[in-house]
Amino acid sequence: MHIDVLTLFPEMISGVFNTSMLKKAQEKEKISYDLVNFRDYSANKHMKVDDYPYGGGAGMVLTPQPIFDAVESVISAKQTKPRVILMSPQGEPYHQKKAEELSKEDHLVFICGHYEGYDERIREHLVTDEISIGDYVLTGGELGAMVVIDSVVRLLPDVLGNEESAPEDSYSTGLLEHPHYTRPADFRGIKVPDVLLSGDHAKIAEWRRRESLKRTYERRQDLIEEQDLSEADKRLLEKK
Amino acid sequence: MHIDVLTLFPEMISGVFNTSMLKKAQEKEKISYDLVNFRDYSANKHMKVDDYPYGGGAGMVLTPQPIFDAVESVISAKQTKPRVILMSPQGEPYHQKKAEELSKEDHLVFICGHYEGYDERIREHLVTDEISIGDYVLTGGELGAMVVIDSVVRLLPDVLGNEESAPEDSYSTGLLEHPHYTRPADFRGIKVPDVLLSGDHAKIAEWRRRESLKRTYERRQDLIEEQDLSEADKRLLEKK
Repeated sequence: MHIDVLTLFPEMISGVFNTSMLKKAQEKEKISYDLVNFRDYSANKHMKVDDYPYGGGAGMVLTPQPIFDAVESVISAKQTKPRVILMSPQGEPYHQKKAEELSKEDHLVFICGHYEGYDERIREHLVTDEISIGDYVLTGGELGAMVVIDSVVRLLPDVLGNEESAPEDSYSTGLLEHPHYTRPADFRGIKVPDVLLSGDHAKIAEWRRRESLKRTYERRQDLIEEQDLSEADKRLLEKK
Repeated sequence: MHIDVLTLFPEMISGVFNTSMLKKAQEKEKISYDLVNFRDYSANKHMKVDDYPYGGGAGMVLTPQPIFDAVESVISAKQTKPRVILMSPQGEPYHQKKAEELSKEDHLVFICGHYEGYDERIREHLVTDEISIGDYVLTGGELGAMVVIDSVVRLLPDVLGNEESAPEDSYSTGLLEHPHYTRPADFRGIKVPDVLLSGDHAKIAEWRRRESLKRTYERRQDLIEEQDLSEADKRLLEKK
C-alpha cells in the first residue's frame, strides 16, 4: 500500500511514520509513504494556499488549485485510482469497519487542512471520502490522518506479530475488554483476583466474560444494546 | 498548563509538540511539556515494563510498578494534583465537552500503552480519567493523547489568534458547517454559487444556514435530533 499525506506541516507527522508499527510496516515493505507539502504546488507568486471566503465571514479557506494539482501529481506518479480522503469535522464518523474497508486499497491519499476550511469544489470534485475521527475540534487534519493510517496499516497481512495482535480486542467481540493483571500478584497490598491464579480455565473464562459484559454495561450501554446476548451472557450480567 | 506524556515512544510525538499551534502555545508560555519514557522507571534489571497476563491468554500486560513510579515522580516534581488520563479503548468516548473541562486544569498526565494492555491496578488506583477517542483500534495511546492535547490546548486563552479560531465551528452551533468558497470564482469551469457573490448579506446568511442544516440532515441525523430547531429552520430544511 502507498500512502500520500498532503499537509502544510510534514514535520508534524514524520515522527509517527518512523516509529513502532508504521516503521516496521515499511521495513517489511508492506507500505511506503510520501509527505506532500501542497504549498509547493501553489501557482500563486507568494505560494499562498488560502484566501478569504466569498460572502464574508471569519477564517480562511483553502483554494482549490494547489490541492487539485498536488493530488493529480501523486496519482499521475503512481498510475493508480486511489481513495482520496479529506479529513474534516463534516466527514463520516470513523469506525473500525471503515478501517477494514480502507485496508483493502493499494493507494490512499489524505488531504489535511490546518486552521482553514476547504473550498467546496475540493469536496465535490476531488475527494472520494470525507472522514471525521470524532466530535471534537482539532487544529488540523494531520492527527486524524495518522489515526486512520495507524488503524488501517495494522490490519494489513503480516504487519503485526502474533504477540502484538489482540485477537479479543474490543471491536472484534463488540464488548469492552475484561481487566488484565500481571506480576506481581501483590503490588503495594493490592492483589490480583484469586480466580486468575487458580489455574481453573473454565472459571477464568467465565470471570473474564462476566467482567467484559459488566464493564461494557457500566461504561457503554450503546454497545450492549447492539449485542444479541445469549441466555448465558444475560445470567452472567445479572450476577454482576 | 503543564503536560506530561508517559510513553515508550517519545520520538513518535515530539514532532507534534514542536509544530504549529502547540509550538506557538509554548512560545507564548501557555503550556510546557515533558515526554516521560516510563521504561526509565522500571525496577526490573532488564528494564522490562510488561509481563504475561495472569490466567493466560495472548498479548502482554503493562506492569504497575514503572507507571506508578513515573506518575508519582512527575507529581512530586510539580507538587500538583493533576488529572491522570489513561488512553484506552475501554475509556469514556471523547467529546468536545471533555476538552472544555480539561482545559481548566493546570496539569495533565497522559499514560500511553502500546500494543499491551494495562494492569487493572493502574486503572483502579492511579488514574482519574480513562479516555477513548473513538471506536477503532490503534497501536498505542500516543495518537489519542495528542488528539486530546491538541483539542484542549487550542481552547486555552490567547493560544489561537482571531484568524485561526472559528467562532462558528461545528461543535459550537451543534450543526455541521456550511460550504465555503474562495477565489477563483470559476475554477476549471466549476463556479461559486451566485448568492455568495451577490453582496446581499441577508440572503447569504439564509443560504449558509440552509446549507448547514441540509448537510447536517444528510450526514449526521444524530446531530439534528439533538437540536431544538426554530420554525424558521424547519422551513429552511423543507426547502432543501
